[in-house]
Amino acid sequence: MTDRPHPAPIAALIAVDWGTTNRRVYGIAADGGCVHRACDGLGVLSVPTGGFEPEIAALRAKWGGSPMLLAGMVGSDRGWREVPYLACPADFDALRRHLVRADGGDVHIVPGVSFIEHGRGDVMRGEELQILGAAATGLCPPDAIVCHPGTHAKWARLRGGTMTGFRTVMTGELFALLRGQGILAPQLQGEAEPDADFAAGVARALRSGDLTADLFSVRAGALLGLRSRDATSHVSGLLIGADIRTGLDFAGAGDIVLIGEERLTALYAAALAIAGRKTSIVDGERAFIAGAHALLEIQP
Amino acid sequence: MTDRPHPAPIAALIAVDWGTTNRRVYGIAADGGCVHRACDGLGVLSVPTGGFEPEIAALRAKWGGSPMLLAGMVGSDRGWREVPYLACPADFDALRRHLVRADGGDVHIVPGVSFIEHGRGDVMRGEELQILGAAATGLCPPDAIVCHPGTHAKWARLRGGTMTGFRTVMTGELFALLRGQGILAPQLQGEAEPDADFAAGVARALRSGDLTADLFSVRAGALLGLRSRDATSHVSGLLIGADIRTGLDFAGAGDIVLIGEERLTALYAAALAIAGRKTSIVDGERAFIAGAHALLEIQP
Repeated sequence: MTDRPHPAPIAALIAVDWGTTNRRVYGIAADGGCVHRACDGLGVLSVPTGGFEPEIAALRAKWGGSPMLLAGMVGSDRGWREVPYLACPADFDALRRHLVRADGGDVHIVPGVSFIEHGRGDVMRGEELQILGAAATGLCPPDAIVCHPGTHAKWARLRGGTMTGFRTVMTGELFALLRGQGILAPQLQGEAEPDADFAAGVARALRSGDLTADLFSVRAGALLGLRSRDATSHVSGLLIGADIRTGLDFAGAGDIVLIGEERLTALYAAALAIAGRKTSIVDGERAFIAGAHALLEIQP
Repeated sequence: MTDRPHPAPIAALIAVDWGTTNRRVYGIAADGGCVHRACDGLGVLSVPTGGFEPEIAALRAKWGGSPMLLAGMVGSDRGWREVPYLACPADFDALRRHLVRADGGDVHIVPGVSFIEHGRGDVMRGEELQILGAAATGLCPPDAIVCHPGTHAKWARLRGGTMTGFRTVMTGELFALLRGQGILAPQLQGEAEPDADFAAGVARALRSGDLTADLFSVRAGALLGLRSRDATSHVSGLLIGADIRTGLDFAGAGDIVLIGEERLTALYAAALAIAGRKTSIVDGERAFIAGAHALLEIQP
């Protein structure tokens, strides 16, 4: 017997969601189907100086030189090439027009999006492809409030498929910091679930607006025997409650489209129900693939 | 010439403010004067199992066996002996009655204070001696709103010298976490000053209540060239502004007595002025020494 390598399936496009700590690679066929996916820990912070070119060349070699689309922090000052932000209002066509071509023209870097209002600035890199891509491909209505949970959760307003503005809440990062060290860390080693403890945290945060005090009372409550020691779900509820309080205040009335990872969108859907809002959920990976395919206008 | 060791000055009391990461030792004369002070990094988390007894014996030997008073986290489950909390309402006499004697009776451990309201718990260990001690010795009026800034800032209501309730805001800990790692850390390596950048942060926090979003906008603002890169004072203002928003909401109307370290009380005084409140400042070390001296009723 001889070893014969499997031929790689035919991908018309290699799309990479290249974030700070993770890299997700998708091989996308001409009809928009995903023929390959891989995730590794090679986020931009793990790539050494001069390391992007060989990584990109290796991906292209593996896929027979198909065009590439790079989105996320790869286009930041910590990534491969710094690509200017596209300012709001921003739509899918503008995103396409502002793609930056590199490496002989067949590698496309997606610009991030910025928003400035009353002298207050905000930025995103990576979420714009999912959010505008979902609107452009019909996964999400053209007029919508979109919430994209994550390390830096985004609340975006869409009007006629155009992102008119957005706000970032650093909920996931704060949760990770509290979990990593500090007085609450020993109480945050579980998995957050949308249970009664979570709901109580959401309700408290929607009511109080005193996040930094509410967090300490979680420690005090355990010391005084008022609550169980593990507080992962409760603190997740406090943080997500504060997040949606800010987000709804920014975005205004209406139903919410949640785009992102299943675990997080489920928690936000539960929290938004407590806030009296209806939600629909779009899988973030599906939105990314649809957006990448539409952005390069691949023809079957 | 021969080396002759200085005789230790006469201390009627050794008082130790023994916190999580630091230990402050004061030799106090019968008239209440401080004849010795020392600070080291031997906080309770740095003392190995079985390590408290020899440390305490060494301090007593050095001071000729004077009585000792231990306050702070030394009385917690992470310290030497866990001493139950004294529940609010709590006054200075109750603190004295609930001193726990250890080590043959001459070592006194100060209980912490707890407060439960509407099922919400709060605790302090160490600040109670400064706050109730200041009221008992006339450093602070018996009817007052006291703010004690720090890792876990305390807002206490005093009525007739009795602490009727308090609230903790984990402002200092959050600042340390943000400064230590995460997206904002590179922008937080300066020293916080009560300057215009600080004032803008305070004003924003008093207005918005969206701390987690305001923090991210500091990063975005630097990326978009809307603000200078170093944001130490601004973020300090955002956190202290959110702190006093919570504290004033809890404590109600009236002037504020700030008890604590000079650097922190100056920042809080500046922030409270922006909130339209008058303040007076009591040095925290002075309050600790006065409180310790009064608590053991040392007679000159």
